[in-house]
Amino acid sequence: MAETKRIFTFLLRFIAFCTTLSAVIIMVSSRQRATVLVFSFEAKYSDTPAFKYFVIVNAIVSVYGFLVLFLPSKSLLWRLVVALDASDGFFPFFYKVFTILLTSSISAALAIAYVGEKGNPIAGWLPICDQVTKYCNQVKGALIVGFVSVVLYMLLFLYSLHTVLNPLLLEKS
Amino acid sequence: MAETKRIFTFLLRFIAFCTTLSAVIIMVSSRQRATVLVFSFEAKYSDTPAFKYFVIVNAIVSVYGFLVLFLPSKSLLWRLVVALDASDGFFPFFYKVFTILLTSSISAALAIAYVGEKGNPIAGWLPICDQVTKYCNQVKGALIVGFVSVVLYMLLFLYSLHTVLNPLLLEKS
Repeated sequence: MAETKRIFTFLLRFIAFCTTLSAVIIMVSSRQRATVLVFSFEAKYSDTPAFKYFVIVNAIVSVYGFLVLFLPSKSLLWRLVVALDASDGFFPFFYKVFTILLTSSISAALAIAYVGEKGNPIAGWLPICDQVTKYCNQVKGALIVGFVSVVLYMLLFLYSLHTVLNPLLLEKS
Repeated sequence: MAETKRIFTFLLRFIAFCTTLSAVIIMVSSRQRATVLVFSFEAKYSDTPAFKYFVIVNAIVSVYGFLVLFLPSKSLLWRLVVALDASDGFFPFFYKVFTILLTSSISAALAIAYVGEKGNPIAGWLPICDQVTKYCNQVKGALIVGFVSVVLYMLLFLYSLHTVLNPLLLEKS
């Protein structure tokens, strides 16, 4: 039973790591040159602060995901991660912070992507996805993968809460 | 000691309720008519989906805040709120969900407000705050108040976790 649980957690963490890393790669590699009338411009993620924020948050979470998965449990760096994670009393500090950061970054990126797709007539912002379809599709892909990672980190957060609390509750009953 | 704690929680909840309600009122009342060349347009929050989302989330949280503060503890509606709040096992379900929703809505609104202020040269989206300064300032005000409410709900979430857990931990030690 304990073995099954361990494999399940490992798998969940592995998939979460893959999704955040994919979100970074897809978003960073999204760029497209387009010419409208005589203007030639290149659409890329770094022009939009919300997309940069999305990439930074997902990169940070990926690094943590990598450490948790692949660092030998005796290394010094690993001990630092664990120490920080327990700094918040008895709560999985990182999962809580990461869930909020991921939610925040995907919301900001989604808001901008929506304007890119539909525009905002009152503000005079025209949709740009007709000109840079490939770029837009790649951004959408990154957002979908990012959304999966948010859901996974929420699950990991809830799961870690229950892991911490179950022994306490069992003792009580 | 228990009395001080109760007053403290009540105050925290009251301020949190005031901030979410103010965020709704400030955002909803923000509108300004402007004329650029021959075009006349009215900037208002409901033209921007991200701002609508911000208003909806803050309104929902305000209603909950009102219920928690002012509903007599014997009413049927109050029992429903408490039952729902405990549905998640032993966790303050609403604070968790509200913290995430508030974070998400303010991030989306902030991303759009940034484009309104600075524009996005590559996408050809011009800043509009020079034309509708009053509208922009009001949106900024709503976002600042909204940010305070996010911080307060995070505090309430953490506080409620500790309230639930402390008895368990004391029993253990």
